This record gives sequence, C-alpha cells and structure tokens, in this order.
Amino acid sequence: MEVFAVPGLPEVEAGDDLASLVDERVRLRSDDVVVVASTVVSKAEGRRASLDDFAAGDRAEAIAARLERVTGESKDPRFAQAVIEESADLLMEAPFLLTRTRFGHTTVNAGIDRSNVPDADLLLLPEDPSASAEALHRDLGVPVVVTDTSGRPFRHGQRGVALGWAGMPASRDWRGERDRDGRELDVTVQSVVDELAAASNLVAGEGAGGTPVTVVRDWAFGDHAGSDELYRDLDGDFVQQALREWQYQDS
Amino acid sequence: MEVFAVPGLPEVEAGDDLASLVDERVRLRSDDVVVVASTVVSKAEGRRASLDDFAAGDRAEAIAARLERVTGESKDPRFAQAVIEESADLLMEAPFLLTRTRFGHTTVNAGIDRSNVPDADLLLLPEDPSASAEALHRDLGVPVVVTDTSGRPFRHGQRGVALGWAGMPASRDWRGERDRDGRELDVTVQSVVDELAAASNLVAGEGAGGTPVTVVRDWAFGDHAGSDELYRDLDGDFVQQALREWQYQDS
Ligand SMILES: Nc1nc2c(ncn2[C@@H]2O[C@H](COP(=O)(O)OP(=O)(O)O)[C@@H](O)[C@H]2O)c(=O)[nH]1
Ligand SMILES: Nc1nc2c(ncn2[C@@H]2O[C@H](COP(=O)(O)OP(=O)(O)O)[C@@H](O)[C@H]2O)c(=O)[nH]1
Ligand SMILES: [Mn+2]
Ligand SMILES: [Mn+2]
Ligand SMILES: [Mn+2]
Ligand SMILES: [Mn+2]
Repeated sequence: MEVFAVPGLPEVEAGDDLASLVDERVRLRSDDVVVVASTVVSKAEGRRASLDDFAAGDRAEAIAARLERVTGESKDPRFAQAVIEESADLLMEAPFLLTRTRFGHTTVNAGIDRSNVPDADLLLLPEDPSASAEALHRDLGVPVVVTDTSGRPFRHGQRGVALGWAGMPASRDWRGERDRDGRELDVTVQSVVDELAAASNLVAGEGAGGTPVTVVRDWAFGDHAGSDELYRDLDGDFVQQALREWQYQDS
Repeated sequence: MEVFAVPGLPEVEAGDDLASLVDERVRLRSDDVVVVASTVVSKAEGRRASLDDFAAGDRAEAIAARLERVTGESKDPRFAQAVIEESADLLMEAPFLLTRTRFGHTTVNAGIDRSNVPDADLLLLPEDPSASAEALHRDLGVPVVVTDTSGRPFRHGQRGVALGWAGMPASRDWRGERDRDGRELDVTVQSVVDELAAASNLVAGEGAGGTPVTVVRDWAFGDHAGSDELYRDLDGDFVQQALREWQYQDS
C-alpha cells in the first residue's frame, strides 16, 4: 500500500471543481482510493462563515457564559450559536461543547475550524460529507473518503477520521470469517474508511503543507462483506447516553 | 509513504525472539517504522492463559451474572475475573465491561482476545506494551509501534490503535506552528502512533492473513515538537468520569 499527496493544489475557493483540480494533477488508477480533507470540501462548497452570520439565542448566550466561567477564557456566544445550528444534539455543554452533527459525527464544536481559513472567521464541515464524496466519486471514478482531524475520548490528541465515503463500503465485515485456528473472529467490523483517513493524515499533516488530498494506491478492500454503518446514534451508544445525563460540576 | 507486511512469519510461540523473526525476513532501512500487532507480542511474551487460571471472586460472579441477565448470553465468571485482574479501573460493568488497563488503555474486556490463539482460551494484552516496543526498538534499530484492534465510542466498528511505542514520540505537537494564513493551528496534537497503527491495520487485517508485522517506509515524523502523552487518566477525562458515574438500567 502506498499513500502520496496530490502535489500543487491551489488555495480552494467556493465553487471550485475539486475533482478537476485533482484530475489535472494525478493520473489515477482504477484501484486507487482518493482521500480528501474536509477543509477543502467545505471551502469548495462555500461553507466559510463569519461570526456575524450567527445571532446568538438564549441557549448560546447561556452556554458561552458558562464556558467562560468554567474555562477562564473569553467565549463568543455567536460561536456557540454556530455550533448549535450545526448540531443535531448537544451531548455536553461544559467544560467543552461536545455535539453530534446533523450527519451523525460526534465531535467538539461540531467540527467548526478556525485555522487554514483565510478571510473568514469560521469554516463549517460539509453539510453531507457522504454526498460530497459521492459527487467526487462520480467524477473521479474511484472510491473517495472525506476526512477531518478530530479528538476522541480516552486518548490525548487528535487523528484523521472519515466523515463521508462513496464507491466502497465503510467497513470490512469479518462476521462469519475464521481466524488462523478456524475459530470465529473477535473483531467483526473493521472501519477501513477511518483507517484510510488516519493513514492519509500522516501524509497530509495539519499545518501549512498544502496537501489536502492524498491517493491510497495498491490497497484492496478484498473479498469481505461490507457494511456502511459508521455513526452510532444516541439509542445505540451508551457513552452518548451517559454523557447526556452527566453534569459537569462548575467550581 | 509505503506500508507492507513482513512476509512468511510463523506461528509465534512463547519465548520466540520477535526481533529476529522480523530481521530475518526484511531488510529494514534506518527511517522505517515497524508496526507489530499486540497478538504476536503477547504470544512471544507468554501471555496465553486459560480460563482455569482465574478463580472468580464475588465481584466477577456478580458482574457475569448481571451481564448474562442483560445480554441473554451465557457469561463465564472466570472471564470477568481475568478482565478485573488486567484492569486498573472498571468504567462500565453493563451492558458490557469497559475497563482501563494497568498501562492506561481504555477498551472493552481489557483487550483480552479469544481469536487467533491456538491451544489456549485467552490471550492477554502485553503487560507493558511500550516496554515491549522498547525491546524491539533496541534490537531492530528503528521506531516500533505495538498495536491492537479496538472499538470506540460514537462510531461503529473497530480500528487499529497504538498500545505502546518506542524510538519516536507518540504525537506531533503542532502548538506554536502556523497555518497557511499565519494563524495558530486549531489542531495541536496529532497522534501519529495511532495513525500508524490504523494504516498498518489496513494491510495486516483481522483474519487468517498471517501478517502481524508491517513496515512503514518513506514516512517522516518531520520537524515538529513531540509529545509522549497518549492515555488520558480518569482525572483528565470527563468521558471516563461520566461513564463511571452512569448506571445502565437493567430491564
Ligand atoms: N492546497 C491547499 N491546501 C490546503 C487548503 N486548506 C488546507 N490545506 C492543507 O490541507 C491539509 C489539511 O488541513 P487541515 O486544516 O488539517 O484540514 P482538516 O483536517 O480537514 O480540518 C494541510 O496540509 C493544509 O495545509 C487549500 O485551500 N489548498
Ligand atoms: N504469522 C503469524 N500471524 C499471526 C499470528 N497471530 C496472529 N497473526 C496475524 O496477525 C494479524 C493480526 O491479528 P489480530 O488477531 O487481528 O491481532 P490484534 O489486532 O493484535 O488483536 C492477522 O493477519 C493474523 O492472521 C501468528 O502467531 N503468526
Ligand atoms: Mn477540521
Ligand atoms: Mn487536519
Ligand atoms: Mn487484539
Ligand atoms: Mn487486529
């Protein structure tokens, strides 16, 4: 398996045709996977926004005031409003805003970015990353994964994860397959789109590299069943339920 | 960046010298990273165990009985005892056993495997995966990451994660670095060992492939500060705190 960055991509602007930008710079093979940082998908889809676009309601005012008290840092109620509008559910309000986006991804601040965004205060995640991936997949003819860099419970730091995908299943479903000793496998569903996102992130980086798109070559999904379930909803996720019921004790 | 499996590794037995097994099969370059599935580290370190090794105490009996009631599946109290003994903390007892291992990793059932283990009921995780990585690093002369496949909140399925590492930092610390527009970065700590584990898992697979060791070639940590913090402890992790306080409602 090889992972390389598409070279020479320009600053992406609203309305840009990402597929063409990629297609002009790399000769794809039919078994490649193209992995795209959501940053540039958002830019192309016009998801830049300004804090002024968000009129803070009562809930946003209350959340920002509480976060300011708890963290000792100044918090803009308009930012809280943007997060609320991008979210289907708020799982925690303090000591940070943990939300589930409308498309199902659970992350801090609804994944709204403030870096790598010129001339705008905010960059919102794509509205429907799998639809974005589908459009790129149609134009490029190979599987596409749209990613973000995101934190997680239990472990410090952040890593690349998949937000959307098209042209391949999200996971290898190993159920029914056997291990080296003929026993049924413990691991049943391997989230390969997340693993592709992580692999790509090693090459794309987080900084000024200018490498938002990578190609994964000579990797095969293989002869496995597939599954397209990626996001757990509240009902099926005890961790989300616990977080929703838990209250941070402001000191 | 290239990721390939070390070919032709045998079934690993207690006492095997993993570094030699790798060294005989691949000519490593000085800037390679070697990624090793914990399964074979555990086997080499004699971490196979039998259910009979564990005498269930009262807590294990109670947990197994409750899990049996809640899941409708039969649960062995000796398995619960093994999980308890491998754990520093139990975060959830039902509807599944979520624990933090002695070395800091939070996962279901303390990461105890039942597949890919001949002639034994159980395979425990390495006692100290970073020490295991350190020993391999000393012998192989390149950075080493020891991995497992593990589930996570919010998302279905499992993916490769790092359990231990040596010869390189766990994370790229981007703090103080700038984005394309000269602004400070949102993403501060990129957990590259987890991303290497995920990339490797795409190639190693979960089944009968016989490919527990991969080599990551032509990838560079780069000119960044490093951090070795990977596991959050209870104090610094609100999700762990919430889970510890939460009670599953047995129906
Ligand atoms: N060429 C180019 N690179 C960009 C652009 N925006 C971000 N990048 C690069 O894309 C990579 C990922 O950026 P990041 O902000 O981490 O994206 P995210 O993970 O999707 O939030 C980095 O190498 C950035 O320098 C852009 O408009 N054009
Ligand atoms: N050659 C060899 N391969 C093994 C052995 N044990 C497991 N594997 C392979 O190692 C890979 C990872 O196995 P898995 O059980 O998922 O390991 P884990 O992720 O560390 O729990 C698969 O390709 C297995 O077939 C072994 O003793 N020898
Ligand atoms: Mn982002
Ligand atoms: Mn990123
Ligand atoms: Mn395992
Ligand atoms: Mn595995």
